[in-house]
Amino acid sequence: MVLCHVPRWSVRLWACPGWWRPTSTLRALVRPRGPGCPGGASGPLACRMFSKVSSCPPEVMLTQERYPVQRLPFSVVSEEDLAAFEHMVPGRVVTDPEELEVSNVDWLRTARGCSKVLLRPRTSEEVSRILRYCHERNLAVTPQGGNTGLVGGSVPVFDEIILSTALMNQVTSFNSVSGILTCQAGCVLEGLSRYVQEQDFVMPLDLGAKGSCHIGGNVATNAGGLRFLRYGSLRGTVLGLEVVLADGTVLDCLTSLRKDNTGYDLKQLFIGSEGTLGVITAVSILCPPRPKAVNVAFLGCPGFAEVLQTFSTCRGMLGEVLSAFEFMDAECMQLVQQHLHLASPVQESAFYLLVETSGSSTGHDAEKLGCFLEQVLGSGLVTDGTVATDESKAQVDARARLVMPEQRVPVPACSRMFQGWRAWSRGALWALRERITEALSRDGYVYKYDVSLPVERLYDLVPDLRARLGSQARHVVGYGHLGDGNLHLNVTVDAFSTALLDTLEPYVYAWTAGQRGSISAEHGLGFRKRDALGYSKPPHAVQLMQQLKALLDPKGILNPYKMLPTQA
Amino acid sequence: MVLCHVPRWSVRLWACPGWWRPTSTLRALVRPRGPGCPGGASGPLACRMFSKVSSCPPEVMLTQERYPVQRLPFSVVSEEDLAAFEHMVPGRVVTDPEELEVSNVDWLRTARGCSKVLLRPRTSEEVSRILRYCHERNLAVTPQGGNTGLVGGSVPVFDEIILSTALMNQVTSFNSVSGILTCQAGCVLEGLSRYVQEQDFVMPLDLGAKGSCHIGGNVATNAGGLRFLRYGSLRGTVLGLEVVLADGTVLDCLTSLRKDNTGYDLKQLFIGSEGTLGVITAVSILCPPRPKAVNVAFLGCPGFAEVLQTFSTCRGMLGEVLSAFEFMDAECMQLVQQHLHLASPVQESAFYLLVETSGSSTGHDAEKLGCFLEQVLGSGLVTDGTVATDESKAQVDARARLVMPEQRVPVPACSRMFQGWRAWSRGALWALRERITEALSRDGYVYKYDVSLPVERLYDLVPDLRARLGSQARHVVGYGHLGDGNLHLNVTVDAFSTALLDTLEPYVYAWTAGQRGSISAEHGLGFRKRDALGYSKPPHAVQLMQQLKALLDPKGILNPYKMLPTQA
Repeated sequence: MVLCHVPRWSVRLWACPGWWRPTSTLRALVRPRGPGCPGGASGPLACRMFSKVSSCPPEVMLTQERYPVQRLPFSVVSEEDLAAFEHMVPGRVVTDPEELEVSNVDWLRTARGCSKVLLRPRTSEEVSRILRYCHERNLAVTPQGGNTGLVGGSVPVFDEIILSTALMNQVTSFNSVSGILTCQAGCVLEGLSRYVQEQDFVMPLDLGAKGSCHIGGNVATNAGGLRFLRYGSLRGTVLGLEVVLADGTVLDCLTSLRKDNTGYDLKQLFIGSEGTLGVITAVSILCPPRPKAVNVAFLGCPGFAEVLQTFSTCRGMLGEVLSAFEFMDAECMQLVQQHLHLASPVQESAFYLLVETSGSSTGHDAEKLGCFLEQVLGSGLVTDGTVATDESKAQVDARARLVMPEQRVPVPACSRMFQGWRAWSRGALWALRERITEALSRDGYVYKYDVSLPVERLYDLVPDLRARLGSQARHVVGYGHLGDGNLHLNVTVDAFSTALLDTLEPYVYAWTAGQRGSISAEHGLGFRKRDALGYSKPPHAVQLMQQLKALLDPKGILNPYKMLPTQA
Repeated sequence: MVLCHVPRWSVRLWACPGWWRPTSTLRALVRPRGPGCPGGASGPLACRMFSKVSSCPPEVMLTQERYPVQRLPFSVVSEEDLAAFEHMVPGRVVTDPEELEVSNVDWLRTARGCSKVLLRPRTSEEVSRILRYCHERNLAVTPQGGNTGLVGGSVPVFDEIILSTALMNQVTSFNSVSGILTCQAGCVLEGLSRYVQEQDFVMPLDLGAKGSCHIGGNVATNAGGLRFLRYGSLRGTVLGLEVVLADGTVLDCLTSLRKDNTGYDLKQLFIGSEGTLGVITAVSILCPPRPKAVNVAFLGCPGFAEVLQTFSTCRGMLGEVLSAFEFMDAECMQLVQQHLHLASPVQESAFYLLVETSGSSTGHDAEKLGCFLEQVLGSGLVTDGTVATDESKAQVDARARLVMPEQRVPVPACSRMFQGWRAWSRGALWALRERITEALSRDGYVYKYDVSLPVERLYDLVPDLRARLGSQARHVVGYGHLGDGNLHLNVTVDAFSTALLDTLEPYVYAWTAGQRGSISAEHGLGFRKRDALGYSKPPHAVQLMQQLKALLDPKGILNPYKMLPTQA
């Protein structure tokens, strides 16, 4: 028996008193899961309940109970199938219900499948053998990386086999001249980040879930994240992929070339296809050189108009060293303070900005940042701020002296910018932005939206929704990647309610469509948003997507019920 | 009757004494073009010959005569078809053979079709009507932009209808905050470049053919070019496309969002598909802010090992302001000197480098470049060099004084870098690199290869091929985008010879495949390289490409004989 992979985020949540966690003491409480869960309570593969260890959130409902969804006529995993899998990946067939629970429930704890078996291949050949078998047997498969997705895309809806990439975690090669990394799909992003940093490069993407998410999952969901503004989309930085198709064919597009115009760029089909067209087993990705100087400024703004003006000023003055421009509203700050006990480094404001520079010259970058800050503080666009330049091991670095908040210099002279204005580490400033998701999860059930909008209308939906929901919501918050036109809109409530869902959807999608926005900027559609696809894509496009799915996965065994709308 | 679009490059070539040009005085010399040219010499759509105006290169052979290729069973354009087209695009149906000649022959003058009709739609609705009709009638269509392609992809092979985007040249919108440009496919790149520069942005791509090439063609061929190193692939910068499918369906993926993860990213199918899956009619593209400071250095290097070391040093010291790192060998310089009478700004060297910086601070960039130059000149990696900082209207700018070559300061002090070391405009330095293609074309018939290789092996193929060809070739030259691992390998000879072609191919492709390189880095496969696809892509991938083609264009009417290998 092997240990089941537990995402770091999950551990973090479960470690919090008042949360649900699996237990082996309550195995007797197994109950049938309805027609969608063949095998039922009596079989060896029965779904088991979680035990409630305190008065916190309720048990996660089965997806098939919460949402109107019908199981498709896939085969049911039999004892013969398990034996066949054991032959393919000996010792790496997980059937223990307790271990399976971690992979059946998504990180947000709002979607829950009842898979009876999880497979842990180590090689693409093993993945190929598994899929060839499943294809022949008409068994449905859910590929799973770090299970950190936010739209229910990485967990089964019914009893799909979970195909975990957790043991496919080897770096194949790294070219320290070109910065091209080739690795298996199950490498954890943070591990890769550390690995390439040791060789003076950085990964071109970074996101809050980095400690758990797999690079294969990042690519499969076309993850955006915190470095998108600087290094662009994975569609540009991913150079090659190895993918196993639904019938077990291994498609080798694992080149490591910056330019390759030979035929259709097949890897693009799989980037962002959420495991519905093939299972990504290896990735080749271009890593930019590690910046020699990184500065982070955390600023307070009196209104959203000032946020937008600060962004324009920032782009003009920081130019090529600007690497992040994130924003969060006052309610976000309240939640991270309340649930995570993080302190705000600046005085209370309507909006907060995190501006990061990454460059090759400490002096030049500091001068650029200093001039920018002088400009925005002097003009009143920004009312308060703090900066950090070094890594987060300590709260201060050798060149900075610890200063109390009251010692902050609000309007430093351009040339004397870094003389006495640093009290926070970069990590501490970034934590305020990166841990908002965690704070929201601790606030209650979260309805999450992730939309792209024209930047000038980016925040309008938040007050609109506050007015619409009134006291039905605990909090309606907005934050995100302003530089990319990407708003994360979140609504927290005591518990899931279909009535509130009906108030939110399709309202949020229609509002977004009215601005020609995207109803999923970077999270994907997964299970929860698949039927909203039509708000961002015209019927001809949806039809072509369905044709592509039929071409590549004619039996529909790969991550069913995800991404594409329910067909009539 | 409308004027046929003449690419600027073509005009340039034809203006050169000794080149072939069309004439109306020799129309009597019309001769039958064989079975692939239905209608023959006697019909109103007959192909006509070019007249030889001097003793220079021979007439362009028909592609069907030069290469072993069989016409597929498409219908032949009838008088009824012409009447139908006249109804769809009144006054924009070109049938005059002389005008058609320009669009039947490719820019390199090595491929020649015998199309009898060229259509010039103005809107995507017109394109849709044309394609719906052609699809029903089983008429083959070659989409054509600026006809600047280098692999015979933009001209008909037989009598395919030419669908020109030349009149689809309107800018739809430009957002001066986000830098997002939306325009029709037929906009000329240079025109767009000027347009966005007036609003303080730049196009994310630039290439030698900018004066003629259309943005739709750039996207359809996934053009790389001179800014790839800085702004990356069109796969990242193109935000949306409108495409008309083979059956006339208008596929609207013309969003203007930086992030959009709703369903499969269909536009990626059409980027780089060379007009074989659909006709791109509109493009939405992200333009970066215009750099405030641009510097160009032109350097001489004693060997390729020094070129590589200079690149490493450059990337480390110039960091985020590095925007181009191009190289050319000594034979390239000889050819631009001989055929274009351009002077070298530096002493004779084995290799020449063009290094460009683009940044937001004149002072910072100059200091970075100065320190880099001091380093590489001081260490002997570079033996001579010159720099330019301003636009090419004049040879000198207000801040620089004209200096004679002997006044160049070979090793300037870092801080005094720009005190007396500028004699060349940026345009003049760039011309040395950008006009190599033109110089090669004036040298004779050119066998062109465009390969991606591991950067440390980038130049090895050139001396290898020189030894292999010996006196069979006039010149074997290598140049290209070193920063992208992209070598342009060119062989000039007196005239095309099948024997030499057999010596070159598949040798060059096999050599490249041996390094796991790409046999087409940025030019595409077009007509000439389609059968070499297997050197860079495995059989499963080629098979999937053929399935995609069959899905999107079941009758195969879109740009037939291009990109995909001849099927048995």
